[in-house]
Amino acid sequence: MIIDCHGHYTTAPSELGDYRDQQKAELKNDPMFQTTKGILNITDDQIRDSIKNNQLKLQQERGTDLTIFSPRASWMGHHVGNESTSVAWTEHCNDLIRRVCDLFPENFAPVAQLPQSANVKPDAVVRELERTVNEMGFIGCNLNPDPSGGYWKDKPLHDKFWYPIYEKMSELNIPAMIHVSGSCHECFHTTSSYYLSADTTAFVHLMMSDLFKDFPDLKFIIPHGGGAVPYHWGRFRGIAQDQGFDLEEKVLNNIYFDTCVYHQEGIDLLLDVIPTKNVLFASEMIGAVRGIDPRTGHYFDDTKRYIDGNTKLNAAEKKMVFEDNARAVFPRLKV
Amino acid sequence: MIIDCHGHYTTAPSELGDYRDQQKAELKNDPMFQTTKGILNITDDQIRDSIKNNQLKLQQERGTDLTIFSPRASWMGHHVGNESTSVAWTEHCNDLIRRVCDLFPENFAPVAQLPQSANVKPDAVVRELERTVNEMGFIGCNLNPDPSGGYWKDKPLHDKFWYPIYEKMSELNIPAMIHVSGSCHECFHTTSSYYLSADTTAFVHLMMSDLFKDFPDLKFIIPHGGGAVPYHWGRFRGIAQDQGFDLEEKVLNNIYFDTCVYHQEGIDLLLDVIPTKNVLFASEMIGAVRGIDPRTGHYFDDTKRYIDGNTKLNAAEKKMVFEDNARAVFPRLKV
Repeated sequence: MIIDCHGHYTTAPSELGDYRDQQKAELKNDPMFQTTKGILNITDDQIRDSIKNNQLKLQQERGTDLTIFSPRASWMGHHVGNESTSVAWTEHCNDLIRRVCDLFPENFAPVAQLPQSANVKPDAVVRELERTVNEMGFIGCNLNPDPSGGYWKDKPLHDKFWYPIYEKMSELNIPAMIHVSGSCHECFHTTSSYYLSADTTAFVHLMMSDLFKDFPDLKFIIPHGGGAVPYHWGRFRGIAQDQGFDLEEKVLNNIYFDTCVYHQEGIDLLLDVIPTKNVLFASEMIGAVRGIDPRTGHYFDDTKRYIDGNTKLNAAEKKMVFEDNARAVFPRLKV
Repeated sequence: MIIDCHGHYTTAPSELGDYRDQQKAELKNDPMFQTTKGILNITDDQIRDSIKNNQLKLQQERGTDLTIFSPRASWMGHHVGNESTSVAWTEHCNDLIRRVCDLFPENFAPVAQLPQSANVKPDAVVRELERTVNEMGFIGCNLNPDPSGGYWKDKPLHDKFWYPIYEKMSELNIPAMIHVSGSCHECFHTTSSYYLSADTTAFVHLMMSDLFKDFPDLKFIIPHGGGAVPYHWGRFRGIAQDQGFDLEEKVLNNIYFDTCVYHQEGIDLLLDVIPTKNVLFASEMIGAVRGIDPRTGHYFDDTKRYIDGNTKLNAAEKKMVFEDNARAVFPRLKV
């Protein structure tokens, strides 16, 4: 079985965007606007259409089986509005993910967006973790290390500010993919410099701290192949050594990298440098890059081809990347 | 001849640090403190000692010939103080670099620090370019894309704000290495997440703009192997294609990557993915990582070994990386 651990519902029916636009209009008048959840009218047929012609079609064409599926990351928009609007928006996004997974239970497993806001204590986040995991069967979450959208106004990830989230994750036995949302800072381009820099920044928060002493079972996935980290694994090992610790001992029981790297050379480096048990197959599909690479004739984000094309890993190791590691990191995945 | 295009004077005599500490003490009392340059008492013997036992020793041990040498990047500290203190500090740092190069003309060629300050019009920067290049024979400069030290308060690099610098660089026929200084933001660790993220961020400013239409001869070096960029070259090519342009056509006449990547796998990827003409040998020496890699028994930042160890490039291509490309990018280098 081939499990893609990083897929987004980028193709949700337009009613979802309309709901968000309405929130933004209210917020324009009143930044402190307090909202109720309200109703989102989307039919099962609309959801089926949005998935069948997109993610499901691509799954079948590419020969993958199951996508660990979350709301569209760039739309989480934690910098927009306030806790009240973030909660209502997040609940709808997660409800939709649950419906996708109910309609296609063989093909999708649900991962939650969280109702974060910059510098807001994560009480609502903890409640949404309980709702989605305990009541709705979600198997993981996306945690945004920078809810301010590029300004990094919150404390680093090892700070006690974040501990209520880690306590709940540990209790529920779920991992988090560390994933920022859209950038609202003119210096950062969302799907390139912002995503990759945030991945690298989050990794350093974790490696420089003793977080995993306090939470030995906590598991994080760094997306987009770990940002700049595997390419600079020597630099990170060296910096750790200068500071008196062994990088791999410190992080490799808790940190995993996905394979959202869109060329053979990058995937080969990732598989070469990072222990196989720490790499999870993923495509980001449908995500940051939509086109076909003229050099290969295949979609840039058809990452299964690069794993297949790697000549160093044997079949058992590739099965770890495609399936076994995801099952180890997402223990609530039962398919 | 083997030219290392990225070396820092990290070992300057302690009087330099004392001078800066004095500035900081004055600034603590008065953030608008206006200073004069003053005098820095450092003898030639002190400079000789600081170089002979460090950079020169390492050059000889590693078999490199010439280092393109600049003040210590992490000490530029453009977020500290104001234009007046930045100008005085920068002039002393550059004066010292000139003295190093006068004492060891075969081994070092000078690159300038610039007196930047966040959101301050670059008049003093232009003056320091004229002083260092026209009067003191410098061959390049380090340009900080984020003088606010992690807050990214300035405009992106393609903005007209920066144009006076580019006009002067074009007139003087010098390249810039794009290099941030120390981070003063608690979310960013200077030599890992901040440096690598800034490299990636700066590259995206350039690739997303039409800057090189306005300045067709401008040349930038992205240090630390280009941050996350070569590892994600497929992602960047794909994002460019989605936006309707060809990445390599757009940037490869103007952007170069250095080889400050501290393991064989990373260097191999860089040399594999980026055209050979766009890669410049560099070590960052003495820089971010000081130790010996227990896996190889050699210094992490002895990057010449990784180029030597690469099995795909032929001798002529390696000569391009070691020498020819640096001569093309630094036309004022005459050694």
